[in-house]
Amino acid sequence: MELIDGKKVSADIKREIAAEVEKIVAAGGRRPHLAAILVGHDGGSETYVANKVKSCAECGFVSSLLRFEDDVTEARLLEEIHKLNENPEVDGFIVQLPLPKHISEQRLIEAIDYRKDVDGFHPINVGRMSIGLPCFRSATPAGIMMLLERYGISTSGANCVVLGRSNIVGKPVASLLMQKGYPGNCTVTVCHRDTRNLKEVCRNADILIAAMGRPESVTADMVKDGATVIDVGTTRVPDASRKSGFRLCGDVKFDEVAPKCAYITPVPGGVGPMTIVSLMQNTLLAAKREIYS
Amino acid sequence: MELIDGKKVSADIKREIAAEVEKIVAAGGRRPHLAAILVGHDGGSETYVANKVKSCAECGFVSSLLRFEDDVTEARLLEEIHKLNENPEVDGFIVQLPLPKHISEQRLIEAIDYRKDVDGFHPINVGRMSIGLPCFRSATPAGIMMLLERYGISTSGANCVVLGRSNIVGKPVASLLMQKGYPGNCTVTVCHRDTRNLKEVCRNADILIAAMGRPESVTADMVKDGATVIDVGTTRVPDASRKSGFRLCGDVKFDEVAPKCAYITPVPGGVGPMTIVSLMQNTLLAAKREIYS
Repeated sequence: MELIDGKKVSADIKREIAAEVEKIVAAGGRRPHLAAILVGHDGGSETYVANKVKSCAECGFVSSLLRFEDDVTEARLLEEIHKLNENPEVDGFIVQLPLPKHISEQRLIEAIDYRKDVDGFHPINVGRMSIGLPCFRSATPAGIMMLLERYGISTSGANCVVLGRSNIVGKPVASLLMQKGYPGNCTVTVCHRDTRNLKEVCRNADILIAAMGRPESVTADMVKDGATVIDVGTTRVPDASRKSGFRLCGDVKFDEVAPKCAYITPVPGGVGPMTIVSLMQNTLLAAKREIYS
Repeated sequence: MELIDGKKVSADIKREIAAEVEKIVAAGGRRPHLAAILVGHDGGSETYVANKVKSCAECGFVSSLLRFEDDVTEARLLEEIHKLNENPEVDGFIVQLPLPKHISEQRLIEAIDYRKDVDGFHPINVGRMSIGLPCFRSATPAGIMMLLERYGISTSGANCVVLGRSNIVGKPVASLLMQKGYPGNCTVTVCHRDTRNLKEVCRNADILIAAMGRPESVTADMVKDGATVIDVGTTRVPDASRKSGFRLCGDVKFDEVAPKCAYITPVPGGVGPMTIVSLMQNTLLAAKREIYS
């Protein structure tokens, strides 16, 4: 069993990005600039955004954080999005989700200029990814693809089972894994709460991607010997022994599943750090105008 | 075994559309208007476009056919697309594929205003379909969904295997079948030329959708008793006994597969007629501004 070290891979890629940025700057170019809109004070969102700001610094990017209180109107946020769309100094930006209920996430996402949509959530980027055209791939699926690639995990013809059909993980990762090319060219099955014979389906998986958000629901009897298991779960479970009062819990029962695997990602330190690195890569691509001119 | 009669269902739906159009007209509204751009004289394309024009008449739509010779430039076609985008009398339009090699199909598709993209090929419509938002669904997948619905075929939790991962059938039908709701909520597996144990995978299918374009490649030993088989293949196979010199051949070996099925579509007369009906439905939706205002 080999542990997939997302922390190490993400640090490697951030160093590669930083080196490229320094070259751009040395040649007289501008540093990539990522902006983030953060509404309210949700604990998870605060942590994610703080990590994004930190990663920008590590990559040599400029970052801006635009904070709004919970009672901000949708119109005010749309106005801010329009400003960011127009601002030539901003290469890409994100709206940190979730948002308060009185604001339509979808309306905000669709208001973002798709050429600055480094989260890859705009329908144009989703559609282009499905068709197999250059686009900003959404961050978590792209991070998973990088892990498979960096560990040289064989994917062509592999049976890949995706647990969960969310718009931000399950569906897009399934879409990437079925494309021709490497990593990809898998036979992909997407499962969800109404799947019958779930254990049997999972036991056929050479690559199992757990993205249901249900802590420790993938057990050893669902995993084939020699499988690769990618755990996208990051549920906060109360834990009095931690200073924070919680611990991050994956969708996979790691202790019993790991011994059966060829490769497995831990939680934390697996997919999590890769998500931010994908965002950095998309921002670099945006700054270089490599996808959209 | 029940034969799924696409010809009958398509005739029914066309009658329903025609009735709705007459109501619109009686209330002082304008007839829906579908335009088609046809380049060259490919036999298949000529037939498809002629059928579309005929279906428009049956539905009470206005139709326009814009013909160009094989040597037309991409710039000229783009100009025509821009005119159609701007023309308030045209509700929706299509560019009949395939196009001559010197023209980029993708560039043309992306030039179409997505609000008039009744073929559902524009990345915005593809992306919105994947996310589960209202959109123009591409015609063949939408036609398949209508057949499942009209025959009341149970889909929730069903194992659905899609053979083929094309952008116009395999991927979008997989996307529709995995969405929540009816028809949908299937466990979906997408297979292709590099899938291992193809027979075994197919034998697990409650619903098998054959869209590889390989004549008669689905044999009886690949089909579970009681399965629903949807045959999207329409390969023209030389046949001297026909006046046309060819016959349409599906991807399924019908004679040996049909006896095992609960439901099966024939070729011709199954999915084929439904594709055009989907286009008519999208055009009606476009005219009513039901999806995009």
